[in-house]
Amino acid sequence: MPIYTDLVNSLPATVPFVGPETQERASGRSFVARLGANENVFGPSPIAIQAMAQAAAECWKYGDPENFDLRHALAAHLRVDMENIVVGEGIDGLLGYLARMIVEPGVKVVTSAGGYPTFNYHVNGYGGEVVTVPFKGDFEDPEALIAKAAEVGARMVYIANPDNPMGTVHSAEAIQRMIDAVPADCLLVLDEAYLEFAPKGTAPEMQADNPNVIRFRTFSKAYGMAGARIGYAIGAPELIANFNKVRNHFGVSRIAQAGALAALKDQRYLREVVKLVEQGRARIGQIAEGQGLSVVASATNFVAIDCGRDADYAKRVLTHLVDNGIFVRMPFSAPQNRCIRLSVGAKSDLDMFELYFPLALEAADD
Amino acid sequence: MPIYTDLVNSLPATVPFVGPETQERASGRSFVARLGANENVFGPSPIAIQAMAQAAAECWKYGDPENFDLRHALAAHLRVDMENIVVGEGIDGLLGYLARMIVEPGVKVVTSAGGYPTFNYHVNGYGGEVVTVPFKGDFEDPEALIAKAAEVGARMVYIANPDNPMGTVHSAEAIQRMIDAVPADCLLVLDEAYLEFAPKGTAPEMQADNPNVIRFRTFSKAYGMAGARIGYAIGAPELIANFNKVRNHFGVSRIAQAGALAALKDQRYLREVVKLVEQGRARIGQIAEGQGLSVVASATNFVAIDCGRDADYAKRVLTHLVDNGIFVRMPFSAPQNRCIRLSVGAKSDLDMFELYFPLALEAADD
Repeated sequence: MPIYTDLVNSLPATVPFVGPETQERASGRSFVARLGANENVFGPSPIAIQAMAQAAAECWKYGDPENFDLRHALAAHLRVDMENIVVGEGIDGLLGYLARMIVEPGVKVVTSAGGYPTFNYHVNGYGGEVVTVPFKGDFEDPEALIAKAAEVGARMVYIANPDNPMGTVHSAEAIQRMIDAVPADCLLVLDEAYLEFAPKGTAPEMQADNPNVIRFRTFSKAYGMAGARIGYAIGAPELIANFNKVRNHFGVSRIAQAGALAALKDQRYLREVVKLVEQGRARIGQIAEGQGLSVVASATNFVAIDCGRDADYAKRVLTHLVDNGIFVRMPFSAPQNRCIRLSVGAKSDLDMFELYFPLALEAADD
Repeated sequence: MPIYTDLVNSLPATVPFVGPETQERASGRSFVARLGANENVFGPSPIAIQAMAQAAAECWKYGDPENFDLRHALAAHLRVDMENIVVGEGIDGLLGYLARMIVEPGVKVVTSAGGYPTFNYHVNGYGGEVVTVPFKGDFEDPEALIAKAAEVGARMVYIANPDNPMGTVHSAEAIQRMIDAVPADCLLVLDEAYLEFAPKGTAPEMQADNPNVIRFRTFSKAYGMAGARIGYAIGAPELIANFNKVRNHFGVSRIAQAGALAALKDQRYLREVVKLVEQGRARIGQIAEGQGLSVVASATNFVAIDCGRDADYAKRVLTHLVDNGIFVRMPFSAPQNRCIRLSVGAKSDLDMFELYFPLALEAADD
């Protein structure tokens, strides 16, 4: 038998998330409302769709391995240098490269218990140890994360702002304090995947040459292009240069590059989507309220509904919804797993949720 | 400063290939004929283009992380089980995962001097040592590769059939002998990226459960979808399962999945493209002959023209072509670097090459 590394042999067969298609195949039925994966049903700008359709016809060409045009546009948009930006196969892909650059057996990283599992997947995948701190209420806890990073000598400390899976958000000031306090030999991994949905002023000032911070953003969420697989990171030039030592240089789709460039230029559409998402969040709040329940205030395109009891109850609610064609998910960890979580859907999606949610609550009572 | 692994600190800043766009930006001029990157100018099936354009509008959804529909179709097409197939972000992406699974510092792998550099990039990127054997004539040398793998205790031995960069091909029998002779603890990496262009019967029989062989194929070449980033590997279920421990599960574009599925179904279009490529190869041969030069017989969509002198001369020929808007490349290693290499282009591309090639030869004489 060929020889695999001890590390790979030791890894479990696991996936960070089970996809909706997998669930559909298992049940033999398609979901009617796809609200579980933090996807943005409003989709990309029509201009981006057109750019992708056009690029599809030219996809016999590899994409530009430097992602030059997109990095150039992003640099102007963010007022940083191109050398501060690396474009990759979604944040997930870039997190994998980052883990590879920093994590090896014996290395510790700090994140929140119940935080984004794909980050942990990559850290474990390179033999690192994930050390967690609990949420504080339904918020990630910047002070506790930093304190734990210092305590265990972590090489990375991860926070998502706004948070996933709860949708809560910290102010720019709170994140800036975190940036200022990150240990000198540690990297703060600031995942801003949902930033565009958050109130203005959520992002701390861009100090792109700070070697202790890397920020991740994406076209998967507010720009509605999850399936195109394109995201980016902003960091100090030395850090960004390290990505170029390990990344798959021709890995980003030419179609995605064209779409992202067009999407970035259509900020008017982005603002419209953000508005629609705000309205959808409000409606989910009303639906919950109609059942005497509350939601966790969200700065993202998804909302956690507090089902008001324990995880088993929330799981039964979720199962009933899923069995009736409504794809939702729930947080992994207590006490956040008292909630179910759904993305803002189209009106028809939320109509359907409104119809089935009371029935699910009732069924969960049995 | 954050701490990076010693391995990453030790890696050079390198890229396997400089992209044509990078060269265009450096010169300030666009290439008129893009013939250097082994791309397939005939592009994807119109049905695949349509499928991708349609998927672009739905790319707010992540792609199916199991790539189920495509793996199902590929399994039927290849007469293997779905468990024998992993789909990934092009062969390059999959080679990166494979290197991660097998390579660590101290590990040796064997390939041909001047063979596919991206394989070496990934092996080096995980701290492995690349041991090379020379080409034999313009062919990779199966016997020497296997002998060297046995001699140095390699964990992997790589061969591309048909070969890149020379385009030469071995018979199914020769490759089968290689498969039969691979050391028990070694994995034969059989890169069949260009297989569809090769004569029928080039691929040895599919013995997908053989743990000592992994075969790579792609939609980038004959299917004309390089920029969509989708390829696959065929191997024993245990091997394929290991990919699931490390890969970016949501890494394959939904657009690429849709395009690949449609492309696979349009075998008639594939056959037409292969015929056009054959005609293009013949024409490149005639153009070379017209200058008193010969080509290396190719089973791919590119042709190496033997410029008849040394590498410096070939380099001057190449530079003249590039300076006149014709993007071509040349092999990296002696004596193959006596050649320039170009892909089969559209008629207008080859017309332009025919016009400038004599001038380039003349200019290189100075």
